[in-house]
Parts: sequence; structure tokens; C-alpha cells
Amino acid sequence: MSRQGIFITLEGPDGCGKSTQAKMLAQKLVSLGYRALHTREPGGTYFAEGVRRILLDTKHQITALAELFLYEASRAQHVAEAVEPALKLKKIVICERYIDATLAYQGYGRKLDKKMIQSLNQIATGGLKPQLTIVLDIDPKAGLTRALKNSSRGGDRLERAGVAFHQRVRAGYKAIAKLEPKRIRLISALGEQQQVHDRVWRAVR
Amino acid sequence: MSRQGIFITLEGPDGCGKSTQAKMLAQKLVSLGYRALHTREPGGTYFAEGVRRILLDTKHQITALAELFLYEASRAQHVAEAVEPALKLKKIVICERYIDATLAYQGYGRKLDKKMIQSLNQIATGGLKPQLTIVLDIDPKAGLTRALKNSSRGGDRLERAGVAFHQRVRAGYKAIAKLEPKRIRLISALGEQQQVHDRVWRAVR
Repeated sequence: MSRQGIFITLEGPDGCGKSTQAKMLAQKLVSLGYRALHTREPGGTYFAEGVRRILLDTKHQITALAELFLYEASRAQHVAEAVEPALKLKKIVICERYIDATLAYQGYGRKLDKKMIQSLNQIATGGLKPQLTIVLDIDPKAGLTRALKNSSRGGDRLERAGVAFHQRVRAGYKAIAKLEPKRIRLISALGEQQQVHDRVWRAVR
Repeated sequence: MSRQGIFITLEGPDGCGKSTQAKMLAQKLVSLGYRALHTREPGGTYFAEGVRRILLDTKHQITALAELFLYEASRAQHVAEAVEPALKLKKIVICERYIDATLAYQGYGRKLDKKMIQSLNQIATGGLKPQLTIVLDIDPKAGLTRALKNSSRGGDRLERAGVAFHQRVRAGYKAIAKLEPKRIRLISALGEQQQVHDRVWRAVR
């Protein structure tokens, strides 16, 4: 299968500004004449939004393993329905969260077996990896404060998981970035949106 | 972990009478003084019913792989939330559909890789296998006719997959039964409910 587009993922903890930065990056690319698709996991398709509602519903007591399988279900659908077709049309795909999020959240955060997660990631994506992954790094306390401020519900299930959990996630992202320095760029999410965008743009350019 | 109950699964194509037979078996066991739990996949818990709604929604174009991950998500949650706790309480758990359904439907029916399915089954269940599995065998045409007659919607997404698909599923169940003759019993679903129940009971007793 020919993948002639460019696949970029944005990663990072809740409140790091992924959505804002993804949108700014997509607008920048479009302004330069590129065709870009801005999407996100687990949502982005009709199917995945249904799964997303289950995942974020505070009424559910979901086991870590069931949660992992739901993310992989969304991923498989999202890759087949959104990412692959756009790459075939030579678009630049900018996706919020992907395989590294699962390793950081379910592996480092929830302490599920990392090798098992990697094999599920491989199955769900058919081995499709991003050419570039930007991890927006921020102290979990600062990120959570930002995320909760933006949430009318006082934080969804994931955000309420606690600071210790989010510190493990941050450490996880840093460890993953060290393992694949060519693909993964760790960027500070501190400062004004435009400043962060300038850092993101330097990495993408 | 001590699993001191007995775990029985009922399998078979749509319209084979699984629900009726599971209910009759549970009632028989209760009438004899046993404590029984009658449950089913992918539903049975609040979480899994949400997934079930996505799976059976005719509006969704779900890829075979995403469907597989959704089933495994339900399975992981259902084992942790319903099956394991009941087995620990020494109950007899009667479950409609389990690991063999995935192998028959997604492996033989949708032609996904069988080894991959078995490894996902293993991960989702933590290796929990039934002591006894009853496959209710029926010709797909007869089964589908029965299932469609009972459905006010003219058949859900799975039932509308076609007779060729369901013939592969039936052949799959037969192949699986041959591989594990001690655990899996193939029983004809033809005849009156009471006749089928008598066959089921002979296998269980």
C-alpha cells in the first residue's frame, strides 16, 4: 500500500494544548498550500465518538484492560476510515494522540504490560507509524489546572485520575521519546500559544 | 486466583436458540439447588451494553478489526465484572458466546488471522477457559429464518451478513469442536425446545 502523505501526531498530557496546536499547525500548512487533515483519537469518526462517550463517561467502572481494547478498537477504525485514505490522497495528517498515548497512559500510567500494548498497537494500525511525533511536555499540575478550567463538568474520568498517575504518564512520554529520538520530538508546552506554535513549526519544517 | 465455580458457555449461530437454552439450563440448575448466573456476551454489564449498541447499530460501517477489538473490550470487562466474581462465589456461570464465538465469527466468518484472535482472546480473558462449551448446531438458513422472525427490525447488522458468511461460521464451530473434543460438545439445535434442552442437560450432567 502506498502511503505518500505525511503523518504527524501530537501527544502530551491533558491540558498541554494539543488541540490548539494541532489546529494552528493545520492552518499554517493550509496557508502554505498543503492539504491537511486535522483529526484526533479516540474520536474523529462517528464510530469512534461512540466509543469516546463510553470511555469518558464517569458512570462507568472500566477495567484498564477493557479500556485498552476500546482505544485499540477506535484506533483500528480511525486508521482505516480517516488516516489511511487521507495519506493515500497525499494529505498531511495531523492526529491528536496515537500509539504513543496508549504506551504512556495504559503502559506507564495504568501499568499494563508494555510489550502487550505494543503488540496490540501493531495489530490495530497494521504497523502504520507517524513520520513525526511531537510530545507537548508540561508539568501535570499545570496541565490539569488548565484542563479543569476548560471543563464545565469539573473534569472527566481521565482527568480525575490524579496527579501521581499523570506524573507517570509524563515520565512515560519522556522515556518513549528517548527510545525513538528521530521520530519523537519533546517540546515545552509552556508559554503563549504562538510561542509554542513557533516551536512546533520548527520541528515540522 | 481460585476459580471454584463451574464455567459453561453456549455457542452457535444466530437463531440457534442459545438464549432459550441458557435460560432453561439455568432454571434446571437452580431447581436442583445450585447457584447459577446466566449472562451473555457482548452484553451483560452496563459497560458492555454500550459496546453492544455500537456493534449492532446498522448505521456504522465497522471494520472487521475494530469489531474484533470491541468484542475483546467487552470480554475483558465482562470477565472481570461478572464471570470471575461469580466463579469465586462458587456459582455455575452460563455464558452465551465467549472465546469460541470470536474465533468462529471473526476468524472463520470474517477471515481475520486466527492466531492473532487467539492471542487477543488470551489477553482479554487472562486465560480463563470454560470447563464445558456447548455448540448448538443448526443449518444457517434455518437459524436465520428463526432469528429474522423474532426481530422487529428485519435483522440487525450481524444477521444481515448473509448465508455464505454464516456457513463459514458454522464450519468454523465444527472445526473448533474437533480441536478440543473434551471441552466442546456439538449438539443439534433442531427440534422442540424441550428436546434440545434434554440434549444440553445430558452434556452438562
